[in-house]
Amino acid sequence: MARIVMKFGGTSVADLDRIRIAASRVRREVEAGNEVAVVVSAMAGTTNQLVGWCQSLSPLHDAREYDAVVATGEQITAGLMAIALQTLGIEARSWAGWQIPIRTDGAHGKARIEQIDGAELVHRMGQGQVAVVTGFQGLGPDHRITTLGRGGSDTSAVALAAALRADRCDIYTDVDGIYTTDPRIVTRARKLARISYEEMLELASVGAKVLQTRSVELAMKEKVRVQVLSSFQDVPGTLVVDEDEIVEKELVSGIAYSRDEAKLTVRRVPDRPGVAATVFGALSAENVNVDMIVQNISEDGMTDMTFTVGRSDLPRAQAALAEAKPQIGYAELLADTNVAKISVVGVGMRSHAGIASKMFRALADKGINIQVISTSEIKVSILIAADYTELAVRSLHTAYGLDAA
Amino acid sequence: MARIVMKFGGTSVADLDRIRIAASRVRREVEAGNEVAVVVSAMAGTTNQLVGWCQSLSPLHDAREYDAVVATGEQITAGLMAIALQTLGIEARSWAGWQIPIRTDGAHGKARIEQIDGAELVHRMGQGQVAVVTGFQGLGPDHRITTLGRGGSDTSAVALAAALRADRCDIYTDVDGIYTTDPRIVTRARKLARISYEEMLELASVGAKVLQTRSVELAMKEKVRVQVLSSFQDVPGTLVVDEDEIVEKELVSGIAYSRDEAKLTVRRVPDRPGVAATVFGALSAENVNVDMIVQNISEDGMTDMTFTVGRSDLPRAQAALAEAKPQIGYAELLADTNVAKISVVGVGMRSHAGIASKMFRALADKGINIQVISTSEIKVSILIAADYTELAVRSLHTAYGLDAA
Repeated sequence: MARIVMKFGGTSVADLDRIRIAASRVRREVEAGNEVAVVVSAMAGTTNQLVGWCQSLSPLHDAREYDAVVATGEQITAGLMAIALQTLGIEARSWAGWQIPIRTDGAHGKARIEQIDGAELVHRMGQGQVAVVTGFQGLGPDHRITTLGRGGSDTSAVALAAALRADRCDIYTDVDGIYTTDPRIVTRARKLARISYEEMLELASVGAKVLQTRSVELAMKEKVRVQVLSSFQDVPGTLVVDEDEIVEKELVSGIAYSRDEAKLTVRRVPDRPGVAATVFGALSAENVNVDMIVQNISEDGMTDMTFTVGRSDLPRAQAALAEAKPQIGYAELLADTNVAKISVVGVGMRSHAGIASKMFRALADKGINIQVISTSEIKVSILIAADYTELAVRSLHTAYGLDAA
Repeated sequence: MARIVMKFGGTSVADLDRIRIAASRVRREVEAGNEVAVVVSAMAGTTNQLVGWCQSLSPLHDAREYDAVVATGEQITAGLMAIALQTLGIEARSWAGWQIPIRTDGAHGKARIEQIDGAELVHRMGQGQVAVVTGFQGLGPDHRITTLGRGGSDTSAVALAAALRADRCDIYTDVDGIYTTDPRIVTRARKLARISYEEMLELASVGAKVLQTRSVELAMKEKVRVQVLSSFQDVPGTLVVDEDEIVEKELVSGIAYSRDEAKLTVRRVPDRPGVAATVFGALSAENVNVDMIVQNISEDGMTDMTFTVGRSDLPRAQAALAEAKPQIGYAELLADTNVAKISVVGVGMRSHAGIASKMFRALADKGINIQVISTSEIKVSILIAADYTELAVRSLHTAYGLDAA
């Protein structure tokens, strides 16, 4: 017997038929003798409609009222799921965030969960009742409904699993697990049986968007074992667990890519103390996140600085740097959106040298030019011309021995 | 300065444009210096969709979960209305039933309001904040959302007006007031400036369905002055008030009609004590409401009993009487659905004789045969063949001097 939190995303509860299918998966876990809490998202499309209404009335709407409106999507699904479970002969009860309560801070529209009182749910689950909990929302200190921001239902599920001391948090979604890379690019991509929290974070933040980053961070902090699996296919998923639970550590677990980058080069900057602070201070004042950064060695007291920003931030970044030109004193600002970031991720890197050099060798063999390099403890990322994205991913997938047999 | 509750029904908040129009009506009251609470229904069609989903999953769904699902309709409108008001520069805040709270009994799906704590709302309204309250719902003793049953938002508005000691409860709807009769039948029907609670109850229960009967009963009990007026036209409505507030009492205030009746005649029943109890006991056991009843004088120890039931109850009534035939011992059961009930209503009847005889004379003049007669303190109702409905209504409207000039 185990205690399990099962989370169903918007596509998994998109209509009554899918709610019935999800309910039958819950029944299977109950009939296997498990205690089950279910976390549901809004039916796919519902949240967008509710958000659209708020924005039509006022682009600058009150976040408290936005939360009151938008949170209804999950309340509908929770009630319908409880009815679907009862129809299958499973005792079930829906719980809105305010009823449990799931206490959050007061940041309406992007609240953070602070505390969940799981005692009543644990009591009822022990008596065989399934608790169906609204994802994405809680109760703020002002006694008003708060929402956690888009995709927050993953975080709700992990936080609930932590509060209930669940053995596992199963995230049912429209993919059947975490792959070594995007199967649309590499047909021989393999599904991973297990992956560590750290690797999942690196893969998520560079494009493999299966789980919300916040939910993985929370799972890592609270040591919640998360399983990603398909709502529609009956196949094993991927377990996201602590590194210690992964016996056979792979050197490299995945290759990620992102085309949402833009490269900026500030040409001929005076190479004096404080100039980097001026450049990146101007960007940070405009809330532009900078990712990879390289600075060339100085020549005639002048240097070039190259860095990447999210593509959607590019206009804001250009404007900020144009405005700060007198303070920075650069000669030219170059922008390039025709770039892609490729990342090799693996906890095995910590103890193995040569991961990066193998990467550079594999790309050189295909004649792919590396524009920027950045590394972290378990990741090596490079920036290349976007046209080479698929070729680079395939080459690296093969080079690190990730291809399925 | 007055304190006003303004209630907007489903058609008055059916889309964002109508919500904006309703909000502008609220602004007008606020700018006139009034303290305002707004009660909203769900957007027209929303409740039906939510109910349909529950029923598709299970015709015998759990009423607690039904309530959790269906109550979201008003929660959406309340938040949107608050945003719409803020956009007009009016300070506003939405309140779900559970937040105030509006306490109800535990009869999920058809709960009754027991108590509303209006202190916080009164405090905020005093500071110029409009309270936008979800109609149709409250919080049950089980700490779960309850709904009041269809049309319950009128009752919410009147109950809130009572709790806030409001000077008036304005019900905005898709008609512009209460008429002396159905304007589709009598083009010279007049809108009434005022009508008493008692008259409104009699008119509502016989077909002029503008206000929920429960809400009028509550208004009468709590002495809440209710105004019915149009969301779409800017014209005075009808005030529903205590009889004492009506200075010029009309002898007759309205002519109502209903085609939802069926007439049953039990032929040749033994005229002995207890036989009426047997007949109507059999019907009441099947939850069939009986309205008009007449019993002919006895002949050879046998009598006929004629009565009306709601047309939708007719099959159940016939089945119940067929089953009870051995106990009752009647010769024949006749049913007739080709009937209409016409009612003349007016508090003036209490002090004036001759109302009924004028009715019978007017109908006789048109050759209309009266099948059944029943009277109450402020109403005379008759049953006639359905074909004569319009003729009867028009004749009576003229006979009692109700035609507009």
